[in-house]
Amino acid sequence: MPLPQPELPEPAHPEIDSMLSRKFGKEVANYFSGSPLNRVSFLRPDHAFLSLALKHPSASFVLFNKLEPLLASPSELFLAKFSDVQPILGDDPFATSEEELIAQYNSTSYIPQLVFLGLDEKKEGFQYKEHYKGQPYFALDVTPKLSVTEAAEKLIKDVEGRGLTFSKGRVHMSLAAQEAAIYAEARHLLDWNSRNPFCGQCGHPTMSVNAGFKRTCPPKDSAPAFASSDRPACATRTGISNLSFPRTDPTVIMAVVSADGKRILLGRNKRWPPHWMSTLAGFLEPAESVEEAVRREVWEESGIHLGRVVIHSTQPWPYPANLMIGAIGQAIPGGETVHLGHDAELEDAKWFEAEEVREALRVGTSGLGEDAGPEYKEGGLRLPPKTAIAHQLISAVVNGGFLSGAPMI
Amino acid sequence: MPLPQPELPEPAHPEIDSMLSRKFGKEVANYFSGSPLNRVSFLRPDHAFLSLALKHPSASFVLFNKLEPLLASPSELFLAKFSDVQPILGDDPFATSEEELIAQYNSTSYIPQLVFLGLDEKKEGFQYKEHYKGQPYFALDVTPKLSVTEAAEKLIKDVEGRGLTFSKGRVHMSLAAQEAAIYAEARHLLDWNSRNPFCGQCGHPTMSVNAGFKRTCPPKDSAPAFASSDRPACATRTGISNLSFPRTDPTVIMAVVSADGKRILLGRNKRWPPHWMSTLAGFLEPAESVEEAVRREVWEESGIHLGRVVIHSTQPWPYPANLMIGAIGQAIPGGETVHLGHDAELEDAKWFEAEEVREALRVGTSGLGEDAGPEYKEGGLRLPPKTAIAHQLISAVVNGGFLSGAPMI
Ligand SMILES: [Zn+2]
Ligand SMILES: [Zn+2]
Repeated sequence: MPLPQPELPEPAHPEIDSMLSRKFGKEVANYFSGSPLNRVSFLRPDHAFLSLALKHPSASFVLFNKLEPLLASPSELFLAKFSDVQPILGDDPFATSEEELIAQYNSTSYIPQLVFLGLDEKKEGFQYKEHYKGQPYFALDVTPKLSVTEAAEKLIKDVEGRGLTFSKGRVHMSLAAQEAAIYAEARHLLDWNSRNPFCGQCGHPTMSVNAGFKRTCPPKDSAPAFASSDRPACATRTGISNLSFPRTDPTVIMAVVSADGKRILLGRNKRWPPHWMSTLAGFLEPAESVEEAVRREVWEESGIHLGRVVIHSTQPWPYPANLMIGAIGQAIPGGETVHLGHDAELEDAKWFEAEEVREALRVGTSGLGEDAGPEYKEGGLRLPPKTAIAHQLISAVVNGGFLSGAPMI
Repeated sequence: MPLPQPELPEPAHPEIDSMLSRKFGKEVANYFSGSPLNRVSFLRPDHAFLSLALKHPSASFVLFNKLEPLLASPSELFLAKFSDVQPILGDDPFATSEEELIAQYNSTSYIPQLVFLGLDEKKEGFQYKEHYKGQPYFALDVTPKLSVTEAAEKLIKDVEGRGLTFSKGRVHMSLAAQEAAIYAEARHLLDWNSRNPFCGQCGHPTMSVNAGFKRTCPPKDSAPAFASSDRPACATRTGISNLSFPRTDPTVIMAVVSADGKRILLGRNKRWPPHWMSTLAGFLEPAESVEEAVRREVWEESGIHLGRVVIHSTQPWPYPANLMIGAIGQAIPGGETVHLGHDAELEDAKWFEAEEVREALRVGTSGLGEDAGPEYKEGGLRLPPKTAIAHQLISAVVNGGFLSGAPMI
């Protein structure tokens, strides 16, 4: 049985009929985007703000055990209160300034990762200065580990005793749209911190600052083994280094249209179920434009030569850190011959008539591990669910007006 | 005097009048994109291919000293031959397989960074198997250092004796379009390798593989101090880790149009020359769509609330590793009041009438350190040069038909 699929997020301000909407159509808001939170990114170094937000009665904590979120239901994150997490966090991790914490850095003390996600401005709650208000959201890693093992095990036992579960599996596609966006932000940051405990520049341990959005390479380490001397110079301490900030990997994903505009190219990976096809995709490389990356990936994977490429919409994809940039590209006349021998990533790639794809969008979509819908006939084309940007791109080409002549994006 | 500015790269296949071109206009190809090289990325692990390419008479080496490229002229890279770099590279760095080199890894031996950039298919040269041909391009770091100090100093003295110079300064905006794209690829990869000599996951030294496009955390180190035991387990060795691959940081840059479509918002940084304004810009954050990042950055920097956002074009920016994603966003009615107090990054931001901006595009553009053109009158608005995507976005709004009603992208 296919799982019920959540609705996509509402585009921002869908009611506004702007010049851009009239020319390019309404914005497509993809799954994992559409967060209700204002990140107020510039307040992250401000421990006075963070301390007040953390201890405000409306403060809400999304809990993760080994990167799996605690759910209240399949569509909803569980929101813990400060009193739930105080045994793990202590009375106030923001009681001293960031500078002071860096000066006191000790590489042998374990601090569970806490991330400030933002303020939900639509909910009553906390107010800071004139402009910043709403319910504060945090993410916290409660994996039982080192000094917090006991407190974390107790918390996990408590919440599981209340019937709550940490979600198993990699893709949390049943979350409601806004919950999915909050989850994506939290997972991306917790994963990045956990992958980067050491400095790529000098090899020494780093520490989390800016409420989880930066890692710094402290100049001193007060752990007994190191306390007698400063650490070596590190280039990340002078000027701004991208190594200090979370990494997001741009990927391109593209619907490919034939030169006459009548057919669409779909490809398949040998690990997918029978009859399942999708758009091509790949990582953008250093010093490529998105348009160039789309043409390169399509040629490498399918042998097709593309001309014009148009960017359609984008989707955050927190497994672990991708930005999916969705595009539509058109083959050049004479450049439509499929050749799978360059990169050999695909098991197959072929051209489909629009009508067959339209029918598959109607009856043959589902998540990868799920069955197609009740109207699907064995042997028919299967396609990804609407929570995937691939689905949106295919739909833009065959239903969204590209073939009919109406505006597409 | 303003420096002569290079032409922008030709869009791919400008002669093809495709359905996408008719609907969205011709593709805008920004400076640093438009590379003539086919990267044949899937051949990078193939040392038989790399060895043949390296030693082919047409093989060309772009040389860098501390990330500064060797130029033949202000618009052209100098291309060294294999015989020039053999004293630094040895007879064949690809003589043994990648697996064998990883097994022999010794953290104390210095290997100057070599990057395979791609094949220029328009030039006669080398052929590999049926499909891959052209002139092979490599980048090589010839910074005098450790075991190559003497050979590198000799090479540098030789080329400087021939009147060639390593470019000084950060932005190489005088390079011809295709040269700039090759330079951008080379600089991005050399910089990434030099920033990541250690593994962020385990803190041990890493080694360059895949012809400069991957860093691996070897399981053993044959340096005398470590040879007696294996290194600790590292998560980057099991499965695929993004830490092993080059990093590219997505940034958003956006022209902001008023709700009535008649004005454009420009901002300025206090370090810029008087009267100089540009579009707003900032880094995309984890788990944001591009459209959300545009709205967040515009609100944080200027207080303006945007509705619909459309992506226009993209630009690689190798200082050190950015992908600039250019967009156009429209303010919502009632959301146009400028407030600089949130992030406080800008010194000023204000709305301009289209006519004033059109005039400034005509007479007031130049690189940041340069004078405006001869028709510029002191006190008039100044704007970035056409090699900047900011210029292209501003031009798309005020000249490209957005205000006039013709298709914009
Ligand atoms: Zn460091
Ligand atoms: Zn490692």
